Amino acid sequence: MIAIHPLFDIPEIREGDDLAALLGDSLAAAGLMPLQSGDVLVVTQKILSKAEGRMIDLTTVEPGPDAQALAETTRKDARLVELVLRESSAVVRAVPHVLITRHRLGHVMANSGIDRSNIGPGDAERALLLPLDPDGSARRLLDRLAPGGTAGIGVVISDSFGRPWRHGVVGVAIGAAGLPALVDRRGEEDRDGRRLEVTQIALADQIATAATLVTGEGAESVPAALIRGLALPDGDAGAGALVRPPEEDLFR
Amino acid sequence: MIAIHPLFDIPEIREGDDLAALLGDSLAAAGLMPLQSGDVLVVTQKILSKAEGRMIDLTTVEPGPDAQALAETTRKDARLVELVLRESSAVVRAVPHVLITRHRLGHVMANSGIDRSNIGPGDAERALLLPLDPDGSARRLLDRLAPGGTAGIGVVISDSFGRPWRHGVVGVAIGAAGLPALVDRRGEEDRDGRRLEVTQIALADQIATAATLVTGEGAESVPAALIRGLALPDGDAGAGALVRPPEEDLFR
Repeated sequence: MIAIHPLFDIPEIREGDDLAALLGDSLAAAGLMPLQSGDVLVVTQKILSKAEGRMIDLTTVEPGPDAQALAETTRKDARLVELVLRESSAVVRAVPHVLITRHRLGHVMANSGIDRSNIGPGDAERALLLPLDPDGSARRLLDRLAPGGTAGIGVVISDSFGRPWRHGVVGVAIGAAGLPALVDRRGEEDRDGRRLEVTQIALADQIATAATLVTGEGAESVPAALIRGLALPDGDAGAGALVRPPEEDLFR
Repeated sequence: MIAIHPLFDIPEIREGDDLAALLGDSLAAAGLMPLQSGDVLVVTQKILSKAEGRMIDLTTVEPGPDAQALAETTRKDARLVELVLRESSAVVRAVPHVLITRHRLGHVMANSGIDRSNIGPGDAERALLLPLDPDGSARRLLDRLAPGGTAGIGVVISDSFGRPWRHGVVGVAIGAAGLPALVDRRGEEDRDGRRLEVTQIALADQIATAATLVTGEGAESVPAALIRGLALPDGDAGAGALVRPPEEDLFR
């Protein structure tokens, strides 16, 4: 049995907050410390970004000519578009109300993952960028929260993405440590001795999505969750392993 | 806390098996009956397809000229390609080793969801198609397993899809009953009174993906799971609600 525990009583996060300490307090209050083998702590991108000071005052952003042109195409705030361009390596799609980019971390997502919703009171003119290095942040959280050795314990940094062809968002991993974000089973056989057709499993995305069942969106949101009882395969690769390089892209 | 229970001891399924009875036995053996509000039973597509007799003997399939041409392009078995075409309304992408179609149910997926892996001993020449009507099958399973009233109890039929831009598969819902497969929160506000940017949540896909943490793939696979403790929003819409119609597609 796998259990997904919502983590409560995490205060509104501000730049410089000690996120590991706050998460540790919440885990302890829930009776979940120490972490044990088969645990993965899922931390939503928003609180990590806030702790890292990734909140930008939009009134300080000067949109350049590219941003202004793209803002007209997409009918979006040119200052936001300027940030989207700074955070991305390529524009994948730009049509009215839609701006999909390849984030500098490789993830293809709307608005380079920049969020203007639910980022604190009085923040109407502010935008929250993705963390600078979510895999590294996951590693640091893991080292702090499982200092005595991390075998079979992981941390995932989650976000929500829309998808082509399907309505609605699901969770995805933009950072991971302590587990193989992508599980490669090429060469393995199924129970009838036939080679598996499905050979790569996006484990960290699956874990991020499972956590969204308790972290939710909006008013009732919970900023982190602990998943206990996972059978984690050996290996340790960050969420970068989930990114399909542009040259392999079927839908450029 | 949400619990994901793997369901064990489900025998190899054959055409005509009473899947509801077998699932009920497994649920009862695990101490999970009767179902209660907040429960969603996730059933993998494979066992539903097998019970429905969707296994096709490839030696009986006569590929037509379209299938033969497409088989050459994709370097796939022409008989398999013939089935893929029969099951689909459009070919989305065909390149060597890749054939992505829009299934007649609307889902965009590799090979129209047809599976040649892990479908029983001696099945090297057989292929397993998706169920005929997964939303209807989910409804029938729900009616059988929660006959006294189904408030807050759901059934999801799950499959695994690859995705553009990201490596690895995740779970998706191809059928659902008893819950809103898509949760529409347009018009709602976040805790700071700002309108939510993320307004549609693919709840049934999230549930299907969470279940894959125990149903897995391949040798150790478990064909069903019970998720207990969900806070299901009101509403009842099948997995068809998750399909983005072709005319809204950004990546045709």
